[in-house]
Amino acid sequence: MTSIALISERGVLSFLSAQLETALPGATFRHWPETGAAEAEIAICWAPPKGALASMPNLRLIHSIGAGVDNILSDPNLPDLPVCRVVDPKLAAAMAEFILWGTLYFHRRFDEVTANAQAGRWQRLEQTAAGDKRVGILGLGAMGEQAARLLRRVGYRVSGWSRSPRQLEGITVHAGEAALDRFLGKTDILVCLLPLTPATARILDAERLGRLPRGAGLILVSRGEHLVVDDLVGLIRSGHLRGAILDVFDEEPLPPDHPLWREPGVLVTPHMAGLAKPRAIAEQIAENIRRLQAGEPLVNRVDPARGY
Amino acid sequence: MTSIALISERGVLSFLSAQLETALPGATFRHWPETGAAEAEIAICWAPPKGALASMPNLRLIHSIGAGVDNILSDPNLPDLPVCRVVDPKLAAAMAEFILWGTLYFHRRFDEVTANAQAGRWQRLEQTAAGDKRVGILGLGAMGEQAARLLRRVGYRVSGWSRSPRQLEGITVHAGEAALDRFLGKTDILVCLLPLTPATARILDAERLGRLPRGAGLILVSRGEHLVVDDLVGLIRSGHLRGAILDVFDEEPLPPDHPLWREPGVLVTPHMAGLAKPRAIAEQIAENIRRLQAGEPLVNRVDPARGY
Repeated sequence: MTSIALISERGVLSFLSAQLETALPGATFRHWPETGAAEAEIAICWAPPKGALASMPNLRLIHSIGAGVDNILSDPNLPDLPVCRVVDPKLAAAMAEFILWGTLYFHRRFDEVTANAQAGRWQRLEQTAAGDKRVGILGLGAMGEQAARLLRRVGYRVSGWSRSPRQLEGITVHAGEAALDRFLGKTDILVCLLPLTPATARILDAERLGRLPRGAGLILVSRGEHLVVDDLVGLIRSGHLRGAILDVFDEEPLPPDHPLWREPGVLVTPHMAGLAKPRAIAEQIAENIRRLQAGEPLVNRVDPARGY
Repeated sequence: MTSIALISERGVLSFLSAQLETALPGATFRHWPETGAAEAEIAICWAPPKGALASMPNLRLIHSIGAGVDNILSDPNLPDLPVCRVVDPKLAAAMAEFILWGTLYFHRRFDEVTANAQAGRWQRLEQTAAGDKRVGILGLGAMGEQAARLLRRVGYRVSGWSRSPRQLEGITVHAGEAALDRFLGKTDILVCLLPLTPATARILDAERLGRLPRGAGLILVSRGEHLVVDDLVGLIRSGHLRGAILDVFDEEPLPPDHPLWREPGVLVTPHMAGLAKPRAIAEQIAENIRRLQAGEPLVNRVDPARGY
């Protein structure tokens, strides 16, 4: 009988309980910090308290409930155990749709269109073809690749940036630190889909965002910690950037009195770009537990040194 | 030397003059009601005053500057001459993008997302896959077909309605009057791209819109006269329909004090879904004039009995 610990800061895992019980019949579940740390073999986590994982001597697998594992790898006492994440193709599809909507929003100037509608102002704006808009995907993991392909199918000029060289049909890939500024300089709409690691934290600062051509827009769907919010706001206020769609924040939910809600040019969305279904999460975790017990290779295993 | 009359209600054709002169070197141009009606061989029109065309005895061709010809065919004294329209593939592409944006707007609930952002309200909404949303294209002409194909490529369930049966890969086509209610009953997002004819005027009334499933949205990009605005507003207010994106109106520009600007659930856009480039318009008209003079078949010729 497998003993499983559910570990999160504020009981955020309770939405998964029923699906996990269905997917893992016969397992026992305990919510941290209930007792049972000694028996736990599997930890299912979201932002586990620092040190919690290290207190479990029989742990064999650490599983994130999402695609990002920064909330786990940031534990300085992380045990040397396999860490896996959930890669839900439906989540990636939903994320790609959100990005497509945001791309059309900037490309067809729906920020202005909506403001004009609210003011009762009939104003036709100049129209540009999708093939004349350069969309740049920062981070070409599973989600970045799916978004890039969708944008390409719709007709956009798509490029991407990744740490190591990639081949993607119809998509110009810039690779490595040295190519980043060049990539940014050719991007009208920047989509950030990077994993959050020490190397990517606050990567979107005044210097990097300032490399974007005048009038560029930002779609941030990775982690709030990729962005220096004040630098972004400064570049929008100065007119260098057109605006931003921000789906992720340092603090979530974004508090109701946070000034970003009312910052002109910024559209706040509630970390909604891609939501994984509890059933898909539970089934992927169950599959990895089955593989662990059968001695088979785990899927979606993370390299803690790379951070994703 | 070809004699050309430019005929419109309010000098709206002046934006085309330079491009027409480039595309038709050696032709003479007169703006109605300047004299020259006797010599004019070609009429280039947008909403010509009733009877103007009949006053030109040497006319051989009537050319619309747009895809719709309702503004010409509605002249009760229309001479029995070829009527042609402009079918600009770039316009159809732009139209399809607008429709895609609108589809994502309803599908991913960006009407609520935007309202929540303005209220500083963090609220995650349930997420549906594109493959679970049924988009119905009312009118499968060149533009309807292009929109249907794009939506299909993005992953939506697409159906269409046309007067006569069609075959479109991956798209369910309903044909004929008798199939209309069945089509509407299976449509979550309705896109109207019909030509405006006596048979289609005010087709979107309380009875037709009421056939849509509860929560459906409307994207109107054809002509304002397809819609009974009060019926739409009633169905949104009663909660039967989710909302509407209206790009076309009985009166354009929509006056600043028109109540539609402020009607909850309605987004007014300024007849922007697809704008033809003056150069493309001028080149297509010049090509048809060349064909007329060479005795070759005209392109994009309209059947006045059908109305498109």
